[in-house]
Amino acid sequence: MKNYKISVIKGDGIGPEIVDEAIKVLNSVSKKCDFTLDYKEYLMGGIAIDTTGHPLPQETVDGVLDSDACLFGSIGGEKWDTLPRELRPETGLLKFREEMGVYANLRPAIVYDELVNASTLKPEVIQGCDIMVVRELIGGIYFGQPRANDGFKAYNTMVYTKPEIIRIGKQAFELAMKRDKRVCSVDKANVLEVSQLWRDTMNELSKDYPEVTLSHMYVDNAAMQLVRNPKQFDVIVTGNIFGDILSDTASMVVGSIGLLPSASTGDKTAIYEPIHGSAPDIAGMGIANPIATILSAAMMLRYSLNEIKAADLIEDAIKAVLKDGYRTKDLASFDAKEVLNTTAMGDLIAAYI
Amino acid sequence: MKNYKISVIKGDGIGPEIVDEAIKVLNSVSKKCDFTLDYKEYLMGGIAIDTTGHPLPQETVDGVLDSDACLFGSIGGEKWDTLPRELRPETGLLKFREEMGVYANLRPAIVYDELVNASTLKPEVIQGCDIMVVRELIGGIYFGQPRANDGFKAYNTMVYTKPEIIRIGKQAFELAMKRDKRVCSVDKANVLEVSQLWRDTMNELSKDYPEVTLSHMYVDNAAMQLVRNPKQFDVIVTGNIFGDILSDTASMVVGSIGLLPSASTGDKTAIYEPIHGSAPDIAGMGIANPIATILSAAMMLRYSLNEIKAADLIEDAIKAVLKDGYRTKDLASFDAKEVLNTTAMGDLIAAYI
Ligand SMILES: CC(C)[C@H](C(=O)O)[C@@H](O)C(=O)O
Ligand SMILES: CC(C)[C@H](C(=O)O)[C@@H](O)C(=O)O
Repeated sequence: MKNYKISVIKGDGIGPEIVDEAIKVLNSVSKKCDFTLDYKEYLMGGIAIDTTGHPLPQETVDGVLDSDACLFGSIGGEKWDTLPRELRPETGLLKFREEMGVYANLRPAIVYDELVNASTLKPEVIQGCDIMVVRELIGGIYFGQPRANDGFKAYNTMVYTKPEIIRIGKQAFELAMKRDKRVCSVDKANVLEVSQLWRDTMNELSKDYPEVTLSHMYVDNAAMQLVRNPKQFDVIVTGNIFGDILSDTASMVVGSIGLLPSASTGDKTAIYEPIHGSAPDIAGMGIANPIATILSAAMMLRYSLNEIKAADLIEDAIKAVLKDGYRTKDLASFDAKEVLNTTAMGDLIAAYI
Repeated sequence: MKNYKISVIKGDGIGPEIVDEAIKVLNSVSKKCDFTLDYKEYLMGGIAIDTTGHPLPQETVDGVLDSDACLFGSIGGEKWDTLPRELRPETGLLKFREEMGVYANLRPAIVYDELVNASTLKPEVIQGCDIMVVRELIGGIYFGQPRANDGFKAYNTMVYTKPEIIRIGKQAFELAMKRDKRVCSVDKANVLEVSQLWRDTMNELSKDYPEVTLSHMYVDNAAMQLVRNPKQFDVIVTGNIFGDILSDTASMVVGSIGLLPSASTGDKTAIYEPIHGSAPDIAGMGIANPIATILSAAMMLRYSLNEIKAADLIEDAIKAVLKDGYRTKDLASFDAKEVLNTTAMGDLIAAYI
């Protein structure tokens, strides 16, 4: 029987509650699909600062590197926002991404028929929408050197090299091959040199994928089109900061941020986490929606462990639960038959499997 | 009787048609308000490339500098997209902004009750929405040095100095004083040094405006909040590239891009233009919506010529025309009583004044 080593980072705020539910569901599906999962917990973010004095202990890096995949909750909170930059939870997160070499952040934005009213966008605009945002995650202006702030003048550098663009581009094209075979590359090539290289490289790369249609869009227009007509998109590929902005815009197409998973993959251990934050205001109240984390666990099965059937089972269970009218508090006003707390929702999804 | 010198840049595509209507309305309102306007036309963009070989002739720069304000249509089109970067219409536009020192780009996004259905967002989410986006226009990554692309590695620099941040911040606070007294400054201070300086400087500046409430938002969250709950915003102030993206997102809140004006103001001559592009596909067909340009002319009266009454008259006339059910083709499906062509819409607004 196959056995996988899963590193678990529960993090801060609602992190622990939602990760527990994902583990519950993973255990249920693993029994059904004949594999086992060994979990090991590691510290990161605020709790790591409080416990070890550092947002990303070396033990965490080593432990995650030694695992097959990492299931991640959420980190951060006001409590740690006033610390010096190098000690903040966010700094730990960026360092973690870099250490894991996770250059590709995949964020699916899928509109469930059952929750078509949960968006602020009109149902007819979003129904059937299925977008995959592929965001470059360890380059661009987030990591570019030089960077400085002397209190009078401050700057950052947005930089990409051709190999960096090729590897993220490949991810996008490969994903498109399994989907609707359309890639929209987003840049600001009418203004930025770095975007011109991005665009030229995507054009070159597209020759290796003759079946995929590549289009280009300026980032301002892409932000607009995501609101105007999101259904026009299949795969969107873009750089780090543009992807940060556009994937959040895409999440609003779906509306319910409690449903959105993500995968960060690259050369080493991949990280699976909900796109929502640690929501300290509702931590410990048992009302957090665990579905985004459970869907992230499904992505883990699909992309890191190649347990496709198990991933399908989880996704189908979630669809069934939503269809049968079960909701957590955040979605209570959208055709709810019964409103469940965090644990009950986890139990139910596990049971549906 | 007061007399103002107006430089006019009609540009490419639908530019000439829509600017003609704005001039028609300006002439009508100037008679009523006892001032005169002298117009002088200058070339820019594609038409300037075709006529003079350069997207921004020196004569245009000199002429606009010598005027009280500049009324601008739109530039660009596929025809010129393959020219070398330094000869493209966009390059001319950026150079033009720099020459005019227009550091503040003001983009109001106001939802008209009559067109509350024209957005893809639900009416209840946008009704009554009135946002002013204040975008820094001649700094940041658009103009930062160094910048290069050697075909293997490419980079741009996002840079701001304190004085640059202060002058755009002042614009935002001054505008907020005349509105709901709330400024939301948008940055990515959790990742970027340049954003940290931006945030610190805004905090400092806010001490000079004790009546105004300053808040901060990360750019990814701001993009999300503009879709989730746009009514929470009064004035948004942000840097060049973030403003480029967010103002386009904000325009989708309003929905009808044919209604959105803008002002670019600074030390020298201010520029007034619709936010939409040159729409070559419908140029010369007489179906373009001139309202965004006419509203830009109203902004010109308000901000550059201090003819407040005339500005109010134009804005009221437009509201009345919309209320009475007159629409151009782009808005034909939103409670239209009668659909007018470009000239007829200009005539009607002029007549309502
Ligand atoms: C917390 C922050 C540094 C992070 C980012 O900007 O990448 C977050 O917004 C995200 O999208 O994961
Ligand atoms: C055409 C382009 C250079 C320009 C910009 O990015 O500033 C446009 O998008 C705008 O917003 O006015």
